[in-house]
Amino acid sequence: MSNKKLLLLSTGGTIASVVSEEGLVPKESGETLIKRLEKLPYDIDIKDILQLDSSNIQPEEWRTIAENIYDARNDYDGIVLSHGTDTMAYTASMLTFMLQKINIPVVLTGSQVPINVVLSDAPDNLRLAFAASATCKPGIYLAFDRKVMLGCRSVKVRTINFNAFESVNYPVVAQVTSDGLVFNEEAKIPSHDGKTVLNTEIDPHVAVIKLFPGFDPNLLYAMVNNGCQGIVIEGYGLGGMNFIRRNIVAVIGDLIKKGIPVIATSQCLYERSDLTRYEVGRLALLEGAISACDMTTESAVTKLMWALGQSMDVKEIAQFFETNIAGEVTL
Amino acid sequence: MSNKKLLLLSTGGTIASVVSEEGLVPKESGETLIKRLEKLPYDIDIKDILQLDSSNIQPEEWRTIAENIYDARNDYDGIVLSHGTDTMAYTASMLTFMLQKINIPVVLTGSQVPINVVLSDAPDNLRLAFAASATCKPGIYLAFDRKVMLGCRSVKVRTINFNAFESVNYPVVAQVTSDGLVFNEEAKIPSHDGKTVLNTEIDPHVAVIKLFPGFDPNLLYAMVNNGCQGIVIEGYGLGGMNFIRRNIVAVIGDLIKKGIPVIATSQCLYERSDLTRYEVGRLALLEGAISACDMTTESAVTKLMWALGQSMDVKEIAQFFETNIAGEVTL
Repeated sequence: MSNKKLLLLSTGGTIASVVSEEGLVPKESGETLIKRLEKLPYDIDIKDILQLDSSNIQPEEWRTIAENIYDARNDYDGIVLSHGTDTMAYTASMLTFMLQKINIPVVLTGSQVPINVVLSDAPDNLRLAFAASATCKPGIYLAFDRKVMLGCRSVKVRTINFNAFESVNYPVVAQVTSDGLVFNEEAKIPSHDGKTVLNTEIDPHVAVIKLFPGFDPNLLYAMVNNGCQGIVIEGYGLGGMNFIRRNIVAVIGDLIKKGIPVIATSQCLYERSDLTRYEVGRLALLEGAISACDMTTESAVTKLMWALGQSMDVKEIAQFFETNIAGEVTL
Repeated sequence: MSNKKLLLLSTGGTIASVVSEEGLVPKESGETLIKRLEKLPYDIDIKDILQLDSSNIQPEEWRTIAENIYDARNDYDGIVLSHGTDTMAYTASMLTFMLQKINIPVVLTGSQVPINVVLSDAPDNLRLAFAASATCKPGIYLAFDRKVMLGCRSVKVRTINFNAFESVNYPVVAQVTSDGLVFNEEAKIPSHDGKTVLNTEIDPHVAVIKLFPGFDPNLLYAMVNNGCQGIVIEGYGLGGMNFIRRNIVAVIGDLIKKGIPVIATSQCLYERSDLTRYEVGRLALLEGAISACDMTTESAVTKLMWALGQSMDVKEIAQFFETNIAGEVTL
């Protein structure tokens, strides 16, 4: 049996950073990353496509990344994308929508510490990502700290320790043990049958508002009047929002009438939002708020941008949010 | 030895909710809550001060709650505040600033399920809160699911299960075991020596923005031009923000010059923000962004509102954020 043919697309990030007077700056190439690893049982090609701290990875870079993956999809058994950790969950979520039915596994990884540091987590994470890209079913994944997760379910929850990412409201896909990469049968991987669709049309003119007591709902109008085309509101608990005095529920209703989609999600990291249970949620639902159910905020905001990029209206966006594209939502 | 004298202040919330056609609505009194418990070894007075779903608890209610606690502080050994879970962490954080050097323990609690349901967590949580209010050192606490936490460190992280709250970046203060309420020596409780200060002057005209790739920084101007007096930005990882193309760092610098404080925190739930480590953070720091260090967003936004209420300018607010008031930040 010949070796699997894999592609490393490098984009910068901490993993490729070096110390400079301005702090850590991403400077290393994909080749340097590979050189730091022990020999791997794969045929690996390397392509440097970006060299950015991931705080600076934005919609324009998403397009570049998605196109590179799309172009290489039939020449490789799998692709590893090295990427800074800061926005990795956003990129993974957006690639889920930009590259629907992708025909090979695409695995994002990075590290908390640069690869040229003795105690770096980079070599382990890279090895894991290559192994995952050689063995997973087609789809977009994130591999970090001995865990492989669905990209659209991953969230960066820690700033310092190596277990930076968690799979939120979805089982971990696979884990490294003494038996190698052990797949978890409870983590269903959505079917990727059919033709891969590259669609990078998105509208990033949206906002994510975290609700807190005292928030003036008129600030939502201020944003909409300045070009904001859709809003994700991280409400409380199951998705509740205030309607006494500062009536955010009424403002949502008004925005929906004006054609601005408002996605209601929870600021609680774990477990689902459910606007039906409490009076404070039911009212928002009646006003037309679209529930993000158990999606991560990362998935909700990228799904919204993608939907707006397809020129969907509010009703179509509501339907789109009731559709599970690639495992991002439990309906 | 005579029984401890405790006060229950009830405000509504799920714990006091009943099923109605509009969903769960808070209707039960404090007396009903107490009647559902087995006899407790304390002398308990009850006062119903509000009857709200906590999604509707806002700055006006914070004032009412703080004044009630202040007025009762010398007549009781401890106070339990029953409260909805949705905004409990915000109320606990704000009380930390409104009631500095409070001379007795004040313990917030509530439940995920109404007290009149067979499998409710309410009786356990109430008993824990009373025990904590009888035994903790002075301060503002949150008691939930067998754990007592500093109020200003607690965050609601789960919408369904009973372990709804976590103590973020601070050890749990005490835990229920077979030995009763066991205090954790690693959780230092800040000194509350001196005279209790009631100060409910706050300015709620602020916003919490969760950064995502593609966010248009001009929306910050839109909010400031519509009355927003301060902004908390949940940046990436250690607090990084983009400066290429959409230059949020430059907008922050401009807002700071205009006298609008901008607090930089992390959207990662756990561990500290540290603007010094990466180029993307250092630039924000140079522009005058105020680091929230390891504070919760709940504490950061309430501390900002309180600081604005004292008419502090940007420089004073920066100094205030470098001051640990009651355990909310590790410096």
